[in-house]
Amino acid sequence: MTEFILSQSGPSTDRLSDSQPLYRQLADQYRRAIGNGVLRPGDRMPSMRAFMQRHHVSLATATESYRVLERAALIDARPRAGYFVRVPPAAALPAASEPDLAMLGAAQFVGIHSAISTIVSKFQRYPDALNLGGATASPDLYPTDALQKAALRALRRQPTLLTAAGHAQGDPALRAIIARRALDAGIQISADDIIMTHGGIEAVNLALRAVTQPGDTVAVESPCFFGLLQALESLGLRALEIPTSPSTGIAIEALAFALQTHPDIKAVVVVPNLQNPLGSVMPDAHKASLVELCARAGIALIEDDPYRELADAAQPPRSLKAWDTDGTVIHCTSFNKTLAPGMRVGWINGGRWHPRIGMLKFAQSRHNEQLSQVVLAGFLETSAYERHLRRLRDGLRLQRERMAAAVAASFPEGTRFTPPRGGMFFWIELPRDVSSAALFDAALDDGIRIMPGTVFSNAGRFDHFIRLSCPSTDLNRADEAVRRLGRLAQRLAAHAPRR
Amino acid sequence: MTEFILSQSGPSTDRLSDSQPLYRQLADQYRRAIGNGVLRPGDRMPSMRAFMQRHHVSLATATESYRVLERAALIDARPRAGYFVRVPPAAALPAASEPDLAMLGAAQFVGIHSAISTIVSKFQRYPDALNLGGATASPDLYPTDALQKAALRALRRQPTLLTAAGHAQGDPALRAIIARRALDAGIQISADDIIMTHGGIEAVNLALRAVTQPGDTVAVESPCFFGLLQALESLGLRALEIPTSPSTGIAIEALAFALQTHPDIKAVVVVPNLQNPLGSVMPDAHKASLVELCARAGIALIEDDPYRELADAAQPPRSLKAWDTDGTVIHCTSFNKTLAPGMRVGWINGGRWHPRIGMLKFAQSRHNEQLSQVVLAGFLETSAYERHLRRLRDGLRLQRERMAAAVAASFPEGTRFTPPRGGMFFWIELPRDVSSAALFDAALDDGIRIMPGTVFSNAGRFDHFIRLSCPSTDLNRADEAVRRLGRLAQRLAAHAPRR
Repeated sequence: MTEFILSQSGPSTDRLSDSQPLYRQLADQYRRAIGNGVLRPGDRMPSMRAFMQRHHVSLATATESYRVLERAALIDARPRAGYFVRVPPAAALPAASEPDLAMLGAAQFVGIHSAISTIVSKFQRYPDALNLGGATASPDLYPTDALQKAALRALRRQPTLLTAAGHAQGDPALRAIIARRALDAGIQISADDIIMTHGGIEAVNLALRAVTQPGDTVAVESPCFFGLLQALESLGLRALEIPTSPSTGIAIEALAFALQTHPDIKAVVVVPNLQNPLGSVMPDAHKASLVELCARAGIALIEDDPYRELADAAQPPRSLKAWDTDGTVIHCTSFNKTLAPGMRVGWINGGRWHPRIGMLKFAQSRHNEQLSQVVLAGFLETSAYERHLRRLRDGLRLQRERMAAAVAASFPEGTRFTPPRGGMFFWIELPRDVSSAALFDAALDDGIRIMPGTVFSNAGRFDHFIRLSCPSTDLNRADEAVRRLGRLAQRLAAHAPRR
Repeated sequence: MTEFILSQSGPSTDRLSDSQPLYRQLADQYRRAIGNGVLRPGDRMPSMRAFMQRHHVSLATATESYRVLERAALIDARPRAGYFVRVPPAAALPAASEPDLAMLGAAQFVGIHSAISTIVSKFQRYPDALNLGGATASPDLYPTDALQKAALRALRRQPTLLTAAGHAQGDPALRAIIARRALDAGIQISADDIIMTHGGIEAVNLALRAVTQPGDTVAVESPCFFGLLQALESLGLRALEIPTSPSTGIAIEALAFALQTHPDIKAVVVVPNLQNPLGSVMPDAHKASLVELCARAGIALIEDDPYRELADAAQPPRSLKAWDTDGTVIHCTSFNKTLAPGMRVGWINGGRWHPRIGMLKFAQSRHNEQLSQVVLAGFLETSAYERHLRRLRDGLRLQRERMAAAVAASFPEGTRFTPPRGGMFFWIELPRDVSSAALFDAALDDGIRIMPGTVFSNAGRFDHFIRLSCPSTDLNRADEAVRRLGRLAQRLAAHAPRR
């Protein structure tokens, strides 16, 4: 579709003059096309070859034109995919507020579940609403056909997959592959150090059960993934919310202070790569400091790391576990977000609590099903997973850029937003007087699901934030929904009590 | 093979005299064949038609001959399967001791996991040992081909089964089928009352988490399935072991006394149908009393019910839940034992704790995988499951009869055994001086896995018991293993210190 737009209404060589170099004249034409919306954020630029043919120019001229547009921050090169029209979102909206480091409250028992239940039951009343509130990528970005084929192959090769019980820790072949792949995250482990779990959430639960007793305090990021708050609630734990930056993740100084003042903290839970909901990635230096801080304090650092491979970078960021020297870090992750939301395949490396975690996993739910593990092993053995990840990251990047442009164009003045470093989440700070709960209700009435900020804190900190996610590869449909949402927010902002 | 034996060496009509009625002469011939081992326990008798042809007799004579043998307890009729040579195991070995009802000890924190880990690590050193220590039927009694076909069909029909996330409570179609089938167990529920779980063990864990806090006391059967003891240990709960009869299950009087003397009991966990390891089935009157007792005491009755459909009866026994009028009973079960050990599909009906259990399940591991649920729904919709259950029950019955005969023939004097009412477990009481731990080690050296009684009690009550299970449909191989095991037990009995 983007190619169609380019051929039909993109710039041509018809109106070229000779007052400046050819490459610059061509670049100016594309600049105008981007400026007047003929080319839209996220649209694919013509390939070099297509550009040369269309404008009857040499490779040198084409390359120079693209360089001019790139320097002007109008287009972006993406490895293996070509050039795309850029949205510079930081310019479009002011960055989200940095947290107040003195914001440290008291540790509290968590009571978030009833709020989440209310949201879920409201969702159920609008089954056809467009889902901007989900936590997975749009279904067509996952490799349905390839996984189906892998499953059919696995079943034909091993007919007893459904009837024979599997290995207690998980399929040995899959664990061996995972251990090899973990090197990319900076983690040196063997297959024996891995226990397969029912998704990443079971891994995080097991980690919490291994290192805490009911009544203990756990330090968490703020805002915090509500699933973690539910896990804390269900285990009778207290949460201490640590200020967390939308760009660099958990504030190390604030955590250090918390550890000094709250000796009952038994664990810290962090999503270091593409934090949910912030989309932040901790810089390496912060990761090193965090691991060292927890090691020195002698407490467990539970790393929830399901989004790492969705980060926008030539090389995905490393896991906290890469800096772990004494088993302080319990590393939890899954393939739910990166490969297959329908397969509940996660895994855990328990650091120095590994044997206890193995016991808890066995006592709680035994081994995982064999079938999905064997399918996954077959898929990971080929290059299909890497190809899929590139496609998924490109698809998500395009969706994010279009969504950022739509938010910037339609949300009320005073909205702030720090672009995420990858993944599928958008954490949007509304003007302070706009209630996310009110926007949630209004949006649902208008056929759109969003996640209100109210469920990302046990301490009521984010009531004027919302989390959006990319719902569909139909970019125009998403655009339209975000614009409608923006109008609803405008209306709420206009009627909000002024302070 | 059994038919071959019959045709080659079974009785013929050659030596018939006329001193007594024909039907009695024929019955006597078969009686001798059974007595001298030409026909062995569990062997299939000729069909009526084959009998008539072989002996050139009428249907009336054949029927009368079989009736004589049946009245003499030499053969058994099995619905839809024909007649089989019977082992009257109760006659072969004295029944296991009934428990001392005054045996009630103190509630204790459980510390059983390390003993189980030792056993598991010893198992792993002998990977090729014949497994008489397992908890599932032999692999060839499960419908591997039919389930594989059902899975291939499901994947072709719904290619997104692996990539699309499923329903939070579990596949609605499967839950609807389960609710219909639950009527057979005497349980009236709707699909909404069911939450799918990762096997029955996750269901039991969720039930325990819903009704207890760490430090609370839970009343359990004694002997008790060691997986339950592990769950109690991992949740920081105390176990109070209630005497349990090898024929009628948990002793209601002893439990009533315990509830009076231990006000900190928060739940009772019972396997009412084919108790593991006893194989007992609670009589209906006991079931009614138990439910009433717990309802009156206001505590949860957690029913772990995975074996019900393996009971030897025209109509499987009813679940405790059938007597529940006020939500006292939390019913937990799975398809792991009856259909597919490789599929981790269990379910729970949480009685009056249902909403809390739903919350805990979501927080702990989210929804189950879709694929196995859809496969199961497809399988249960046809008559394939009923056909499979009949075949499984017949196969298990045959294995149990042969095993009982082998135990009676080879175990030392003083061995006691109450035949289980179905299923795959044999709970054998050795002479008091024979250590099951010593027998475990000796058997493993000899290539045989058994489960020592030491892991079925937290209070050291069953150290001279072992649990065997039927390992294989190769009955001669199982016979031979049991005989070797018997010789090892004989040797230990000969060297045991006399009291």
